[in-house]
Amino acid sequence: MKTINVNLDERSYPIYIGGSILSDKELLKRHITSNQILIVTNEKVAPLYLEIIEKNFVKFDCEIFILPDGESYKTLDSLNQIITKLMKKKFSRTCVLVALGGGVIGDLTGFAASCYQRGVKFIQIPTTLLAQVDSSVGGKTAVNHPLGKNMIGAFHQPHAVLSDTSVLKTLDYREFSAGLAEVIKYGLIRDENFFCWLEENIDLLIGRDSDALAYAIERSCINKAEVVGIDEKEMGYRAVLNLGHTFGHAIETSLSYKEWLHGEAVGCGMLIAADFSKRLGFLEQKQFNRIQLLIEHIGLPTKIHKNVEFDQMLENMKIDKKSRDGVLHFVLLKNIGEAFLTSDYSEKDLKEAIKEYFC
Amino acid sequence: MKTINVNLDERSYPIYIGGSILSDKELLKRHITSNQILIVTNEKVAPLYLEIIEKNFVKFDCEIFILPDGESYKTLDSLNQIITKLMKKKFSRTCVLVALGGGVIGDLTGFAASCYQRGVKFIQIPTTLLAQVDSSVGGKTAVNHPLGKNMIGAFHQPHAVLSDTSVLKTLDYREFSAGLAEVIKYGLIRDENFFCWLEENIDLLIGRDSDALAYAIERSCINKAEVVGIDEKEMGYRAVLNLGHTFGHAIETSLSYKEWLHGEAVGCGMLIAADFSKRLGFLEQKQFNRIQLLIEHIGLPTKIHKNVEFDQMLENMKIDKKSRDGVLHFVLLKNIGEAFLTSDYSEKDLKEAIKEYFC
Repeated sequence: MKTINVNLDERSYPIYIGGSILSDKELLKRHITSNQILIVTNEKVAPLYLEIIEKNFVKFDCEIFILPDGESYKTLDSLNQIITKLMKKKFSRTCVLVALGGGVIGDLTGFAASCYQRGVKFIQIPTTLLAQVDSSVGGKTAVNHPLGKNMIGAFHQPHAVLSDTSVLKTLDYREFSAGLAEVIKYGLIRDENFFCWLEENIDLLIGRDSDALAYAIERSCINKAEVVGIDEKEMGYRAVLNLGHTFGHAIETSLSYKEWLHGEAVGCGMLIAADFSKRLGFLEQKQFNRIQLLIEHIGLPTKIHKNVEFDQMLENMKIDKKSRDGVLHFVLLKNIGEAFLTSDYSEKDLKEAIKEYFC
Repeated sequence: MKTINVNLDERSYPIYIGGSILSDKELLKRHITSNQILIVTNEKVAPLYLEIIEKNFVKFDCEIFILPDGESYKTLDSLNQIITKLMKKKFSRTCVLVALGGGVIGDLTGFAASCYQRGVKFIQIPTTLLAQVDSSVGGKTAVNHPLGKNMIGAFHQPHAVLSDTSVLKTLDYREFSAGLAEVIKYGLIRDENFFCWLEENIDLLIGRDSDALAYAIERSCINKAEVVGIDEKEMGYRAVLNLGHTFGHAIETSLSYKEWLHGEAVGCGMLIAADFSKRLGFLEQKQFNRIQLLIEHIGLPTKIHKNVEFDQMLENMKIDKKSRDGVLHFVLLKNIGEAFLTSDYSEKDLKEAIKEYFC
């Protein structure tokens, strides 16, 4: 088992990565400081892992909240249902929420923990690759608004993150490849060596090799933890984590969060961002080709979904959180391993880069 | 004009108190750092003060959101409406929200500011005594849940607070006296001299004497700022600000936030807390009498509203935020000017103290 520390003063916390985390009888309990526990999960994850997690809490006042599966449940209404459950059970401010699931469950549970009685503790047990390398780390929590993704939320750090690589073996390939998009992102934005490692080891990863998985998750979490440690509240540098996300979110919003998984939208979005970087003269064609090749090899979409309309997508981009007083900032690439934030571009180049990815 | 600084490192902010704050053409604008402004207010306050505030923003992208008046609108649904407005107008993370109104508007707007895109700036312009001395200062924001008050919220400090004493002259007496309950609270919990000043000057305050008002607001804000500076997130000491609130909130919840104003419930709640302190041997009868006399003199209720049932009130108290793992902690008084938090009491004494205040 590996432990990575996210260093944020009194909000610091450990990320545990390993192949038998869920069956460890002490690890989870070590971070529980209350008798009142609410496990939040969904209908897909519950049959697989709820029992093993619940076993930790036989003598506790342990409640379960199970949502249907899917991004369309990451809403203010689901949040309200969780709060109602906590209220009905008279859970106090010392209670602990446990998020057992992917990004939707983690983001929603984290936001519920951030605002129930103005903040209670929560623990992340991510069960998808995407959640293990991205959403469970860094304290960004949120629900979606019909007009935009993650628009209602808070920065609220988990108390601990437990990432068991064995859960990835049963993950269906689409979910898995969507997670790989975020793994590649860390290589692209700040870790060229890791990107080279990914190029060499991508087939091991796709084959769910345990050691390769543990290494990829570890490197992803170390990179994310470093960025978050530098800029917890996204005042500046943290924005690099959003490479491809402005495009990706706009695609997702256009699709009403259906059809594509978040990681798929991000994969396609990173390709557009790389193309845009190339058009603006920052990224060399050779480097662009390497990025394109890796994304294609994984099987992530390389064209925008046919249900997205060009004008609609541009409109949706305007509400992105990287917008400042109405001016949209983009995370672009100078090199593989070097991202930066800019608002210095022409609308023409932007539109051309996007148009390229319509079928 | 007086300026009090709330010292919270990078979250520090000024409170301005004076008789002509709203007509000052520079003060508000000095704290505006964006072109996108949303003023949130209600139907009662808008006709009185919206025009003068709007005048500051003729060249801005300034939007208005007007709610009906009343505590029953401090809900997740109102929050969602504000977020929808911000989304539709494509307001970015640099926008500024301005809360123009009493505690309901301040708490709701503050919470909306805390969670829109995970946090935007907001400015408080409190128009009731209660909001000027309490809810606008200290960064507690929230909406109510049908099962409990302020149960969904965040700590989110305002960027500035502008308290104009002239707005209090038109405040109806019930609202005004409800604010006085919180003013008295500061004397009771940590400022004996201020309590003595209140005993001597209460009729000047009731007569809305400008100097007396400014002094009472200033002393209240200084006390609150000191407490918040010591314990921003209510890990311990800040709880003293909740003197009478465990009882008060339970009364309000029993009344579904109707019939009584928050300050009225707190006034009655402080009397019960003082009585409970006396029963437990902490507070002398003579001091209790002084507290009772002042609360009566102001005209605050000294008996629990007839629509509240005893068992219901006890039940509602259990979900209080001062509950820890199911054990209810109370803020009690050792002396006038000295409050403390305890869970060391018998259920019998608690029930007797409460019963005393049923008609």
